[in-house]
Amino acid sequence: MLDALRQAVFEANVELVRRGLVFASFGNASGLAREQGLVVIKPSGVLSADLRPDNLVVTDLDGRSVEGECRPSSDLPTHLALYRAFPSIGGVAHTHSTFATSWAQASRAIPCLGTTHADYFRGAVPLTDAMTPDEIWSDYERNTGEAIVRRFADLDPDAIPAVLVAGHGPFCWGASVCEAVHVAEVLEEIARIAYQALMLNPQAAPLASDLHEKHFRRKHGPDAYYGQNKR
Amino acid sequence: MLDALRQAVFEANVELVRRGLVFASFGNASGLAREQGLVVIKPSGVLSADLRPDNLVVTDLDGRSVEGECRPSSDLPTHLALYRAFPSIGGVAHTHSTFATSWAQASRAIPCLGTTHADYFRGAVPLTDAMTPDEIWSDYERNTGEAIVRRFADLDPDAIPAVLVAGHGPFCWGASVCEAVHVAEVLEEIARIAYQALMLNPQAAPLASDLHEKHFRRKHGPDAYYGQNKR
Amino acid sequence: MLDALRQAVFEANVELVRRGLVFASFGNASGLAREQGLVVIKPSGVLSADLRPDNLVVTDLDGRSVEGECRPSSDLPTHLALYRAFPSIGGVAHTHSTFATSWAQASRAIPCLGTTHADYFRGAVPLTDAMTPDEIWSDYERNTGEAIVRRFADLDPDAIPAVLVAGHGPFCWGASVCEAVHVAEVLEEIARIAYQALMLNPQAAPLASDLHEKHFRRKHGPDAYYGQNKR
Amino acid sequence: MLDALRQAVFEANVELVRRGLVFASFGNASGLAREQGLVVIKPSGVLSADLRPDNLVVTDLDGRSVEGECRPSSDLPTHLALYRAFPSIGGVAHTHSTFATSWAQASRAIPCLGTTHADYFRGAVPLTDAMTPDEIWSDYERNTGEAIVRRFADLDPDAIPAVLVAGHGPFCWGASVCEAVHVAEVLEEIARIAYQALMLNPQAAPLASDLHEKHFRRKHGPDAYYGQNKR
Repeated sequence: MLDALRQAVFEANVELVRRGLVFASFGNASGLAREQGLVVIKPSGVLSADLRPDNLVVTDLDGRSVEGECRPSSDLPTHLALYRAFPSIGGVAHTHSTFATSWAQASRAIPCLGTTHADYFRGAVPLTDAMTPDEIWSDYERNTGEAIVRRFADLDPDAIPAVLVAGHGPFCWGASVCEAVHVAEVLEEIARIAYQALMLNPQAAPLASDLHEKHFRRKHGPDAYYGQNKR
Repeated sequence: MLDALRQAVFEANVELVRRGLVFASFGNASGLAREQGLVVIKPSGVLSADLRPDNLVVTDLDGRSVEGECRPSSDLPTHLALYRAFPSIGGVAHTHSTFATSWAQASRAIPCLGTTHADYFRGAVPLTDAMTPDEIWSDYERNTGEAIVRRFADLDPDAIPAVLVAGHGPFCWGASVCEAVHVAEVLEEIARIAYQALMLNPQAAPLASDLHEKHFRRKHGPDAYYGQNKR
Repeated sequence: MLDALRQAVFEANVELVRRGLVFASFGNASGLAREQGLVVIKPSGVLSADLRPDNLVVTDLDGRSVEGECRPSSDLPTHLALYRAFPSIGGVAHTHSTFATSWAQASRAIPCLGTTHADYFRGAVPLTDAMTPDEIWSDYERNTGEAIVRRFADLDPDAIPAVLVAGHGPFCWGASVCEAVHVAEVLEEIARIAYQALMLNPQAAPLASDLHEKHFRRKHGPDAYYGQNKR
Repeated sequence: MLDALRQAVFEANVELVRRGLVFASFGNASGLAREQGLVVIKPSGVLSADLRPDNLVVTDLDGRSVEGECRPSSDLPTHLALYRAFPSIGGVAHTHSTFATSWAQASRAIPCLGTTHADYFRGAVPLTDAMTPDEIWSDYERNTGEAIVRRFADLDPDAIPAVLVAGHGPFCWGASVCEAVHVAEVLEEIARIAYQALMLNPQAAPLASDLHEKHFRRKHGPDAYYGQNKR
């Protein structure tokens, strides 16, 4: 089963680059085998062209290396914090895609201005609080994860599968690493359209709550009727 | 004849993705065989790569499935409302192309700022009214279509072959599904240029009515002289 | 010699599409054989994929068809007005490239904000005056050309090889049709960078006149030292 | 060894075009063999498609041609000024990439708004002062280099490997020409995201200095832990 996960994580990291969400080595994706408590993640600083399923790194949920010669992505502790706190997720994708990162650098959550946003996120895409010097200088990447988890104290990570880390960029997640990549792609599209909508109308109002909820339920929950399968 | 329509609708849905107007499964195109009263439409939630002429869905004008195993696009009732109300149209395309959708999310009609707009639309591209909670919670997609039809009470759908649904995105139409896709592509281009023009000059004035009318008539009506055929 | 011109005009029209300057059939290029007084131009409304050297149209400088079955581009009279008024030019390219057209729709000339602009244009890229109803309703395309020519009453078309027609888009020219296409491509790049610069700094000042003149003379005139050939 | 440098400089110039950083012949890259005191640079005005390792030009650090039939890039004296003043650099890349150039034309330094910027630049990307008429009319390209060097009187070129020349565009450098091209690519990405962030929030604050420093040190200096190699 880890072979399948390796393959999925490999493809996810390649897809992030192919879809223009990750430039150079500025991003990473991981997958979790929750029963074994093992995570497969991209090695640090390796370009997409040099990735192979067998140079991915396998660690446990405390970040101890189990397989692989390479150093894992420096963002591994952020991924691990999410896996520990959000019990239903099986994959994480971190990018610096241009529009989502612009919102993070502008220190603005992405308001829901349209139905595509509502299809995927039951609310705004939230922004973490700025980190303190203490959080920055010790265990920075783990504290980045904790800042995300704190931001979700009153939010449902299954209904809002992404966050903007202030001044940094987006982290996205899903049931699988493949789903996390899909969320990353949708998030960038949503971030772009919301940016352009606000340029056209700085007072653009968030979607009416009925319309937001209607669109979310078309795709999620017992009354979903979008697509070919019951969900 | 339905085989030819299947093929045209298949190609139209693939083109929407290839031309960058539809991302993932966020859009759909349909075609109408008006004499038989049959509509061919994309199945719900199916990606472009998995589309084939034979997994398209055929329904009657009330949305009853006539052929095809798949569930039709959830937007089918919107398409049907347009086919019932606009007697000359034979195809509908719905996208979330980024600039057109930005205008919809900004709740602004697209003013005619240039001759390319005037070549295709005899006026601004209009915006529907916001929907009421009742319209949203029962027969949402049909009511979306009715909101469009109401918006065209005093407009000619043959002279203005597209609309922005507020907070959602554009619907486009034409004599054929192929023409509807072409309108969707032109609309995105127009939406982009109008966006940029307004950024450069927020007070940019709509095209003078003589120039607007002149350009529209270069391509439409008895005095058209653009292209190789009389129209 | 007309065969070589046909080939050059064919390639120019294909290049306009390939470089993303012309979308669908929204643009055209022509070339002039000045000694014979003959112009080769794209046929009206024909897509790039359907162009061939032998379906181009040949006319004299009054627009009378000399060779070719097709109707010439509806913009032919604009091209002819330029050929008659600007004695040194041998090619014209007309596009609706997105940034240049945005400036035209915003009714703003493009100020020279940077050295790339100065390399190609000895001043702002000017904007024509709005046309009167009379000019619009009779001989519209010829009057478009006359409006350009009037705008250049005090400007040198060899030193400023492009113009924005208000509410419409750019016309570009050069010693050959190939050069006109190059100007169209440079103009779009300049228009984009000037747009972005103004978004960052609405008070951005035009380049100092010494720097403007220095850059222009690096590439033009007796003291040019850019490139591999004396000019 | 000069053969390897020729090859590297050739590839760097081709990469600048392939990655969309240089349009037409608007840019150039060079490499330095510091021990021999020889520079390999692109010939002036030659398009990427016509470049070959053997039509590159070799000069000494005073700009005297040592090998090659072609005239060197007109920007050679700027490159040389950088090589003379910055002892650790081995490559220079000059582009007019659209977002970086927009900042230069807007006469604004690029503030550090995010962690990607901090990963590469230990501070804002600075802007040179405007040049005087004297500097423009005599030894313009050398004076451009001197203006850059003056701007770095109190800055470390190894910690901030790029500059914006006011009204012109970016110059980037690194230990090798390949690294200079990488910086040029990163700079464009950073310039784009900072542009978009400021559009969303004109008051967006620079990254907190602790976070800026933390990210820089993740990749540089004795405590770097990003990537697969100690640095």
